[in-house]
Parts: sequence; structure tokens; C-alpha cells
Amino acid sequence: MHPSLLQDAGCPKEIPHNEKLLSLKYESLDYDNSENQLFLEEERRMSFLGFKCLEISRWVICGLIGFLTGLIACCIDIAVENLAGVKYFVVKQNIEKFTEVGGLSISLILWAVLNAAFVMVGAIIVAFFEPGAAGSGIPQIKCYLNGVKIPRVVRLKTLVVKVCGVICSVAGGLAVGKEGPMIHSGAVVAAGVSQGRSTSLKKDFKIFEYFRRDTEKRDFVSAGAAAGVSAAFGAPVGGVLFSLEEGASFWNQMLTWRIFFASMISTFTLNFFLSIYNKKPGDLSSPGLINFGRFESDVSVCGLLGALFNILNYWLTIFRIRYVHRPCLQVMEAMLVGAVTATVSFAMIYFSNDCQPLGPDQSEDYPLQVHTHTHTHTHTHTHTIVETQLSPFQSTIFLLFCADGEYNSMATAFFNTPERSVRSLFHNPPGSYNPLTLSLFTLTYFFLACWTYGLTVSAGVFIPSLLIGAAWGRLFGILLASITPDGSIWADPGKYALIGAAAQLGGIVRMTLSLTVIMVEATGNVTYGLPIMLVLLTAKIVGDYFVEGLYDIHIKLQSVPFLHLEAPATSHWLTAREVMSAPVTCFNRIEKVGTIVDVLSNTSTNHNGFPVVVPVAVCGLILRSQLIVLLKHKVFVELARSRLTQRKLQLKDFRDAYPRFPPIQSIHVSQDERECMMDLTEFMNPTPYTVPQETSLPRVFKLFRALGLRHLVVVDSENRVVGLVTRKDLARYHLGKHGLEEMQLAQT
Amino acid sequence: MHPSLLQDAGCPKEIPHNEKLLSLKYESLDYDNSENQLFLEEERRMSFLGFKCLEISRWVICGLIGFLTGLIACCIDIAVENLAGVKYFVVKQNIEKFTEVGGLSISLILWAVLNAAFVMVGAIIVAFFEPGAAGSGIPQIKCYLNGVKIPRVVRLKTLVVKVCGVICSVAGGLAVGKEGPMIHSGAVVAAGVSQGRSTSLKKDFKIFEYFRRDTEKRDFVSAGAAAGVSAAFGAPVGGVLFSLEEGASFWNQMLTWRIFFASMISTFTLNFFLSIYNKKPGDLSSPGLINFGRFESDVSVCGLLGALFNILNYWLTIFRIRYVHRPCLQVMEAMLVGAVTATVSFAMIYFSNDCQPLGPDQSEDYPLQVHTHTHTHTHTHTHTIVETQLSPFQSTIFLLFCADGEYNSMATAFFNTPERSVRSLFHNPPGSYNPLTLSLFTLTYFFLACWTYGLTVSAGVFIPSLLIGAAWGRLFGILLASITPDGSIWADPGKYALIGAAAQLGGIVRMTLSLTVIMVEATGNVTYGLPIMLVLLTAKIVGDYFVEGLYDIHIKLQSVPFLHLEAPATSHWLTAREVMSAPVTCFNRIEKVGTIVDVLSNTSTNHNGFPVVVPVAVCGLILRSQLIVLLKHKVFVELARSRLTQRKLQLKDFRDAYPRFPPIQSIHVSQDERECMMDLTEFMNPTPYTVPQETSLPRVFKLFRALGLRHLVVVDSENRVVGLVTRKDLARYHLGKHGLEEMQLAQT
Repeated sequence: MHPSLLQDAGCPKEIPHNEKLLSLKYESLDYDNSENQLFLEEERRMSFLGFKCLEISRWVICGLIGFLTGLIACCIDIAVENLAGVKYFVVKQNIEKFTEVGGLSISLILWAVLNAAFVMVGAIIVAFFEPGAAGSGIPQIKCYLNGVKIPRVVRLKTLVVKVCGVICSVAGGLAVGKEGPMIHSGAVVAAGVSQGRSTSLKKDFKIFEYFRRDTEKRDFVSAGAAAGVSAAFGAPVGGVLFSLEEGASFWNQMLTWRIFFASMISTFTLNFFLSIYNKKPGDLSSPGLINFGRFESDVSVCGLLGALFNILNYWLTIFRIRYVHRPCLQVMEAMLVGAVTATVSFAMIYFSNDCQPLGPDQSEDYPLQVHTHTHTHTHTHTHTIVETQLSPFQSTIFLLFCADGEYNSMATAFFNTPERSVRSLFHNPPGSYNPLTLSLFTLTYFFLACWTYGLTVSAGVFIPSLLIGAAWGRLFGILLASITPDGSIWADPGKYALIGAAAQLGGIVRMTLSLTVIMVEATGNVTYGLPIMLVLLTAKIVGDYFVEGLYDIHIKLQSVPFLHLEAPATSHWLTAREVMSAPVTCFNRIEKVGTIVDVLSNTSTNHNGFPVVVPVAVCGLILRSQLIVLLKHKVFVELARSRLTQRKLQLKDFRDAYPRFPPIQSIHVSQDERECMMDLTEFMNPTPYTVPQETSLPRVFKLFRALGLRHLVVVDSENRVVGLVTRKDLARYHLGKHGLEEMQLAQT
Repeated sequence: MHPSLLQDAGCPKEIPHNEKLLSLKYESLDYDNSENQLFLEEERRMSFLGFKCLEISRWVICGLIGFLTGLIACCIDIAVENLAGVKYFVVKQNIEKFTEVGGLSISLILWAVLNAAFVMVGAIIVAFFEPGAAGSGIPQIKCYLNGVKIPRVVRLKTLVVKVCGVICSVAGGLAVGKEGPMIHSGAVVAAGVSQGRSTSLKKDFKIFEYFRRDTEKRDFVSAGAAAGVSAAFGAPVGGVLFSLEEGASFWNQMLTWRIFFASMISTFTLNFFLSIYNKKPGDLSSPGLINFGRFESDVSVCGLLGALFNILNYWLTIFRIRYVHRPCLQVMEAMLVGAVTATVSFAMIYFSNDCQPLGPDQSEDYPLQVHTHTHTHTHTHTHTIVETQLSPFQSTIFLLFCADGEYNSMATAFFNTPERSVRSLFHNPPGSYNPLTLSLFTLTYFFLACWTYGLTVSAGVFIPSLLIGAAWGRLFGILLASITPDGSIWADPGKYALIGAAAQLGGIVRMTLSLTVIMVEATGNVTYGLPIMLVLLTAKIVGDYFVEGLYDIHIKLQSVPFLHLEAPATSHWLTAREVMSAPVTCFNRIEKVGTIVDVLSNTSTNHNGFPVVVPVAVCGLILRSQLIVLLKHKVFVELARSRLTQRKLQLKDFRDAYPRFPPIQSIHVSQDERECMMDLTEFMNPTPYTVPQETSLPRVFKLFRALGLRHLVVVDSENRVVGLVTRKDLARYHLGKHGLEEMQLAQT
């Protein structure tokens, strides 16, 4: 969750910036079906064939999700390459014009201004149009899959802003990647496609109506996230694992297979269209937005740098939440970062004396370019054309501040796109980089990336992390080779770059299984699987000792009521009686309309679920959204009697209102109608899950988490309602340094 | 579950052989903790540090599991190679002696007798000592993880018999693999190590006592199964996915990481010790009992053959259950198969005229051997030594019935170990196999493998499936190449062999995600990932249309109350009222000892869980095993009063009795004691999960499956017990051809 998210709807005065707080403004999603009579009737009416059809449409939707996600990845890739190409072309002409007259500062300014302009566009659309599109979107998707309703996270507008934003920020030369946002994009696509309509565009295709509820939507969103990973890294299996490791708690084989299917289609689509774009149709050998080239084939210290990154970013985020929460300020900060990035890189190239001699072989005129090119030609045909476009300018830059027959190795590290730099660090032959250059580069890039993550732009942290890790991994490899001159097997610093990249990324995001598979699939070789695993596990253990993962930090800073997989270990002391909210507002089975309207309008208690009792024992549970639909359609007992022809309310009416149920204020109920009665029997969930008051917190937690509940009714031995447990009641307890801690609730 | 499992404890007359039956003899495991007062007190007494220690011991145990599993894999590998070497040596001497005098039939008989002898030993130990060790053990582990208690499935004796059995059956030349049994072995190791004692050896190390309950044990068993896969195929990620796809329903990150850790350690251990055995310590480049060599680099019809295999094996299994259920008969059948396998292969080699010319290159004297050898030398150093031992004999065989300068290609297909044959089919250059030879081989081996699976020997179906698939895949490739002479990219039949192998195995076992990863990890190349995925999905869809997967067939034939992931689609008609068992035997909180003993001794109602009521409302649930421990320790109210110094019963007493609680008959309760009272308050689970009577079956199912319940109390609106839902009540309903069907319950 990005800080700017907080500003939607009227700039709250007090912004939570304390991880000991829990925001009340996030609602939960209903991952437990409300099995009311309408629902059961529909299910019972449906034939075996009907269920088969539903199953088939699920597969079709997953295929569509994969296809569209792959297409979006393809668009982003092409747009970024072309925009960057135009930018390079302009700067190149400028440099050529001014190098003779010595006015390099003009080129620098042009370069910085161009970058800042791109970043400005990206920041403006994010800050002013859709703050939810900021950042990588991975924390938001994590929260969504966990069951927290993040406002506007899966809307079409978010997708559009996200895609444009990421194109601008990558083209603007920020230390960001385009991979993280793909995961969010995939999720939005999934949420859109599976509903068969667009609420934003007011277009209803009247298909897939069965899937218009939170449970089904969540399953598709996990498929979308997987498809996003798959498109970003060419890692279908990694995508499935990412989706499961980060999101789902309930492992369902059929769902897994569908997610897998979506992932495969996504990779395939991306490859197919990129191969057409590169005029080599049918050549599917370059999966993913990034691949590392193929390694034709040990473990180091790690995790610490990742933890440092997270801590720095944590402080920065707190600072941002406190002081940089106005859109204009955010745009300015983003522009500043863009300009600083350009200036710093320019300055470092200028002042760096690391001029490497060009190889004796004439065909390797510009070692980096040519080398990358060769590699690309052999294995990844994706970027070939773009590289051909850029090389004249880039070679100019690379050779710029060096004597003839030499090239500037700092420039190669800074002026490539991050994806290409990572590949160079992995594959360039030993001796391509000077240790000093690498150290300087690592240090600078580390702080730049740390500053960049959390800006109000759409951007991912994967690639910058990999780049930092690859740089210091290679550095480590070079140092090791210099102290062990005899060990030829230690000689390839590219291997250390790979291991370092894995360690750094693992230290920042703290994924193990899925990241291992993603790295293996992206390198195209399982030989490095075992060292990568070891490094990721180590990075996780070391990093966890200091601070949480980056995504978890951001989730916590936004005070999201996020439920972890298990209750805190020492929480057996607590029982449902202590954690529940009480007293609970209950309704009778046949309730006066006035009472219902009053309860729903009461802003001080913003309840979303109400137990239904008869006369005191719990007999059902009804949701605010259901009551609103009932009120809107005026399903009153008296009206039903008088107007015999009135259409019976159907599940379709609830589905049409989903997911944007109107607020209670928009529903007009006359004074006469207030005296009417409403019969809730048919619409309430007659079998809500209940627990006795003595149930321990871990047990409540397990039930809640395993079934994806939103409300859990606490009853006494006679089945009378004594309380209600919601997500916030459970998320409040967490393990601090001094044992179990209780977070406070904040309205914002 | 193997048929012979049925014969433990007194040969039941009526053996279920109908998949419409559900056996009552299988108990469930308690995957939901009984959170009674004792448990809560212990948890509350434990400090934060205590939980940390527990967490660390979990990791230590997982490491141990991985280590031991790898070691066992190593032992099996070495033993099989040495035994086979001895066998080959004896036969070779015999052939050399008799070839001159023309008495080849003597060699054949010697060969068949030797094979039959090995198989006999393997069959005898399985049939007479531990029928639970038969087959691959994968269905049993699937059931265990699902929550069904299969008698003696995770005992030390089973492990010993399994390991010896698989060595004998592989050395006996049966069409089986040693990979499947590794999964079972890993699971047994896990169940043993995690308990810190061996009940069979009467040795208690007094460690890991906290883990002595079903929930914890299950988690370790999934880690063990993963470690088994990891050791068998060198596929740590595939192992994790196998464990999750086949077993667990609740996805827990921490658990996943531990499983992953166990897998890694297992692969590492196996490699390490094998590399020492092969006198190349530190060379870890050959992961797994089988690896396919590395592929340095399309989809066909599939699934049908897998389905055919399953159908044939289904009929055969029914036949076996009906007629071959006496141990002696089983041993004889196994010996027969062993002899037939030897004879058929001998005969086919003899009558086959497929003599391929030896290559012109002198260094490739015996193309298959030399070629495999070269490959092995480059990538997998594992089998080098063994091959050097065998090659003199094998070359004799290969050249035996052919002219000088030729070799018998049928012999190469039949006389290698299946692992090596698979590798040859993948990697031998085009033209190594005659299409006719391959067809004959495929056909013969198909029926042999089908006949072999389900014999009373320890054996896996993975490798035979791969071999069949590789053979017809290569055949397909050859045919395709012959009709498209121009397409050079279609020319490598080895690729088709790989795809065919994946298709055949997928069609038989119906795994997708985990099998993809296993195949990719075993080939060491992700390039084939996408085609393998496609083929596996196709195989699954096509195969599922005809018949279930092999493991599911065997589970069904054993009438195991297996809970699938979701309730049948059309089961919303049913409610808890209809599926529950009623009336339920309930106890009072303070109950007379005589009543309890009578209820427990009543053999007609073999209940395992009893709701505790006060006076009519449910206030707890107590298990048979807990009551037995209470009776054994004579925890009577009167005794507690008189003997003030009596030690209070602790959780330790329950753990000591776990998992083999004595039967009620073994506990002596005097007539006086029958009049005493027992206070169950402290020992019952005071917060059992309850559902109202109107709850639909899918909802009950979801609760049951997600939480791993054993008993679910059904209550009315006043919280009075009206019924109890157990695993068998839910497993009874399944989707047949004509909609929802209800299975019948059988005592056996």
C-alpha cells in the first residue's frame, strides 16, 4: 500500500504512520459464501451439466486472463523500448552537437530534464488520477488475496494508470523495473474479465454472472497475479508458486491447475507477440520481460544488505507518510528523483576514470554492447532490434570520456536499461568491470533504488534489487578471485553476480520457494537451483532477524488488518470472549424497516454483518450489502401482500449491485415505509459459523483463516449471541519484542 | 493400498472389491488439536523462547529427515547395482560356458530362476512380514495425508521391508522402478524421526515429545514424502509440489519452507554419498536416483495409453482382490511374473532379427553402451563404475544373436536397467532403434508393467511408465521423421521420447504441476517446460475422461474413506441432518466409569468421539483414546479424593500412549471401580466445532476438509446434540455417471 492511497476521499487529517495502529477504514471481503435460501435454490436448480459448464467457463476465463496479461506485458515492453529509443536519439543528437564546443553541461541538463519530464507525467497520472496505481502493487494484491478490500485496487482505471505510469517511469530512467507492476496488472485483468462487465465503462456483457462474488473473484485474481509473474519473468511455475506463497491459504488442486493454465497462456502470448514484433514469428525462445540469458554451468553472506534496504525504506516511508502526502509534493519528489538519478549517473561517468581498454579483437569494438548483443542473438531475440537502434548513441556515451581504444565501464553500468545491466553483470567475461567502479555503482544505485521505491509512480523493486545484488555479487567474485589466484573454478564472477542478485532480492522481498523457481526459470538452467535455494533461505533467515520483508513493512505502515497464516505463538491466553467485539447489534427475523435504516445509518458503529436472532438464539447472519439491496428493492412484507404480482427478489439483483453497493444515504425510505416489516429469512445466511466463548484465539484464528471468514459469531452455551469476531479483532494481536502486543485501532 | 493390506488381523471373509463400498475399518486421524485444559495450560506455561525452540527443533527434524532419506536412497542405489552386478556376472559365466555347446536354454533357465529367486525373496518378506510395504506406497501416503489411518503404514518394520523389497524386485529384473518406494520411505523416516522414539524397538529418546500428535506428525510426513521425491528424482521443488498437490490441503508458508528444506537436504545427502561411493567426492552434478542426462536444446496425442493402462490394472486388481489374496498365492504370482519377464525378454531378443550394424567408428564398438557411457561421463558420474563392471557381459548379450559387427537392439532395450533404458531412448542418436523393435518392445513392456503393478512386492510405477512413454514417443518421432523427410527440426526422436514419457506418466498418475517440475528438474533444462506442461494437462484431461488416476483407482478399490478437495458439485440438496450419524452416544461431564466402559466395549458401535453434554447442550468432545488413557490411569473422582498425593494426569501420559492406544479389552476395571465417577471436564475439548442441522453438505465438507476434522457435532438451535458427522458420512457421497451417488458401508 502506498502512502498516497490514504488520501482518497477527502484528505484525512490524521494519517497513521505507526505500525502499532490498525486502520478501521479497510473493509474485509467475503471469502465465505453466504449460503442463503436464494443461493441454495439456485445451486439445487442447477444440473450436473450446469456445473460442468461453469467449470469450463472457469478454464476459459483463465485462458483469457493469461492472454490479456501477456498482451499487456508485450505492450509495455514495446512502448518502453520505443520511448527510450526516442529519448536516446534526442540526447545523442545534442551531444554530437555540443561535444565539439565543450558544452557538455547542456547535454546533462537536457538529459535530466527529459528524464524528469517522463517521470513527471508518470507521477501526475498516479498522484492525481489514481493513487492506488503507485508502487509495484504487490502489497495491495497480497492484501486483496488475504481478504482486505483495498479501495479501487482492481479497477480498470487503476490498470490504465498503472500501465502508462510504469512506461513513463521506466522510460524516465528511474531505478525501477517493469516486472512488479505486471503482477498488479494481471490481477486487475483477472478481476475485470471474470466479472463479464466493466462497472467503470458501464458495460455489462451478461456473462459470467455466477462469478460475481468475492470468493470466485479471489480465485481469478490469484490466477491473474500468477499470469503477471509468468509474463514478467517467463516463469509459469514460479507464477503459480508466487500466487500460492503470497496469497492463497487454501490449497485447491483444481484452482492450482487453472492458475497454472493462466500462467502458461500468459508466457506463451507474450512470446508470440514479441516474436512477431521482432519479425521472427514462431521463435519462442525468449520467455518473459526479463530473462537472464542462459547460464552454461557457492554461497556467500547475504540478507544483511536486504535488511538494510528495508530499514532505510521504512524510515523514508514514515517520512513520506508524515510530510509528503499532498499530490503536488509527491509529483515534485518524483521529478526530483528523476533528475537526481540522471545527474548522479552523468556525474559518476564523468568523474570516473575507469576506462577499460577495448579488446584486441576488432569485432569486439564495444565489448559490452557487442557481447550483450552476441548473447542476445544466441538466446534471446527479443531486444535485438532495439539494441541495434541504440548502439550508435550508447557507444558514443561509452567512449565519451575515455581515450581512443577504451570504453567507460561506469557508463555501461548506468546507461543500459536495468534488465540489460543485470544480464551484462551475469555474463560479461572476467575483467569487464573494475572493482572500484562496481563498488561506487553498487553504493549509488542502492541509495537511488531505496529512495525510488515508494515514490508516487508505478514501479517495481525486483529489477533494481537484482541489479544491486548482481553488482555486489560480482564485486565479491572479483575479490575472491584475486585472493585465490589458483582456483580456476572460482574465476567466473558472473556466477557470483547471479547468487548475489538472488540474495539481495530474497533479502528484500523474503520469498523462498517461488523466488527460487522464478530465478531458475529465468536463467533457464536448474544447475544453480541448489545454491539459489540456499542463498534465499539464508537471506530470509538473516533478514527476518532484523526486519520484516519490504512488502510486509508497507502493509504494516498502512495499518492494514492483515491476517498472517497463524496466530501469534503465545496467544493461547486469549479466548474469543476477550477478542470479540461486544455488544453486537442483532436483528429479528422479521424486523422493522425503520430499525434497519437507523442501524445502517449510524456512522459511529460501521458494522457490516448482523446476527439474526429468534428470539435470542442465533439463527442467521445478514450482511450490510444484502440489507441495502433489500431496502433498495423495497422487499417489505406489507408491499408483498398488497402487490401480488411483485417480482420475487433473485440472486441476480444482488449480483448486479456487486461489488459497488450504494451507501445507505442514497436510499430513500419514506416515513410510511419505516413502519413496514422486512422478512430476512430468505436472505440471511442460516448457518453462520459459531464458536463458544471459551475458544482460544489460535483456534478462532485457524477457523477464520482457513475458511476466509468475515464475521464469526460468538455464542454462549444456549446459542445466544454474545459477540462478533471480525478481521480487525484478530489482526490486532501480534508478536512484538516483548511478547504479545495489542495494536490500537485508528479511524483513518 | 495394496490388496494384501486387507489380510491383516484374521483374514476377513468378505473382501470389498467394489468401488461403491466404503470400508468402516479405516479410522481417521485427528488433524484438529484437542484443545483441552491440559493442552491450553501447557501452551500458556510455555514462554516465547519455548516456542522459538520448538520452531528450531522443527527445522532440525526436517534436516534429519532429509539426511536420512537421502542416505536410504543411496543405500538402495548401491545395493541394487551390486546385486545386479553379481547376477550378471553369474549369467555371463554360464553363457560363456554353454554358448559353445549350444545350450542356450540352460542360460535362459538360469536367468529366469535367478530373477524369480530375487523376486521370491522380495515377495515373501512383503507378503508374510509386512503387507503394507507392497506397491509404491504412494496411495497409502496420499491417504495418510488426507487423514485416514492406514494400519502400520509409517512403522519401522514397513520401512525395512520396503527397502529390502524394492532392492529385490529391481534386482530381480521386474518392470518396476525404485523411485515410488522412496516416497513411502521418506514418509516413514519422517514419522519415526519426528516422534523421537521407536515404538517397535521400545526405545524412547525423550525428545520431540511435543510433536507426538497427529497434526504435527502429518506435517513432518509431508516433509518426508517431499524428501523422498527429491531423492528419487533430484527434484527438490518438485518434491515440495508433489507433497502439496497430493497431500496437504492447508497451505502454510512456514511448513512449506520446512518441507523445502528437507527436500534440499535429501538431494544433497544422496549426491554427497554417491559421489564418495563413486570416488569422486564433492562432485554433486548427478542429482537423484534417476536423472535423464541433460538435454541441450511439441506436442502429440496422449493420455489414452495411460487410461488404458489404468483400466487394465483396475481389472487385474479386482481379480487379485477376489482370487489372489493368500500370501502364498501372492508370492507365487510374483515369482511367475519374474520368470515370465525374464523369459519374454530372452525370447524376444532371440527371435528378434533387429541386428543394427555397429558404427564404422571403432571407438563406438557397442553403440548403446559406449554412447550411454559417454553421456554418463559428461554429465552423470553416478553409474560409471557399475557400467564398467557390467559392460563385458552386456556387450556379450548385445552381440549374442547377431553377426559380427552388429548388435541386437532389442537386447539394449530389455537388458539395461529401466533407468538406463529411459536415458538411452532420450539420448541415442536417430537410427539407433528399428521401429519394429520399438513397437514390439513397447507392447510387451506395457503389458508386463501393467501386470507387475499391484504385485505383492515393493515397486514403483514411475520408471516403467516413463519407459513405455519414451518408447512410443520415440516411435512416434521416427514415424514423423520418415513422413517429413525435409524437416530437420523434427529429426531428433529423443525429444519425442521425452514428451511421450511425460504423457504416459501423466496419463497414469494424473499429476500436472508437480510432475512438470519433476521432469524439468530431472532433465536439467527448462526449455522443455512448456511442451511438458501442455502434454501433462492434455494427458490429464483426456485420461480423466475415461478413468481416474492409478492411485485413485487403488484407493477406491480399497474402499478407503478418502475426502476429495471439494464436495460433489450437485450435493447442495443434502444437509447435515441427512448425512450425519444419529443417535449419538453422549457422556455427562461427570460420568460413571461403568457406563464409559460399557460404551467403549460395545463392538457394534465402534465410536471414536463422544460429545459431552450438560445437561443437554453440548459442552465438549472427548475421544476414545483419551478415555482409554483415563481409564488406564484410573482417574476417578473418588480415588482423587482418597489419595491426595496422587499425581495429576498430564499431557505427557497421553503422549506416551500415542499412537498405539491399548484396546479397551486390555484394561481391567473392577466391579467397585465401575461405580466410581470420572470428571471429563479437564480432558475433553471444550470448544468442538458445531454446525446447525440445516448446513448444506458442501459447507460441512469445507469446514471438515479445511480444518482436518475427525468429528463434527451437529446441533439444534438450543445447542443440543442431534448428530455427529465423521469422515465416512462425507466420503459416502460421490459423483457417479448418473449424478450424486451414495456408497454403502462395509465392515471390512
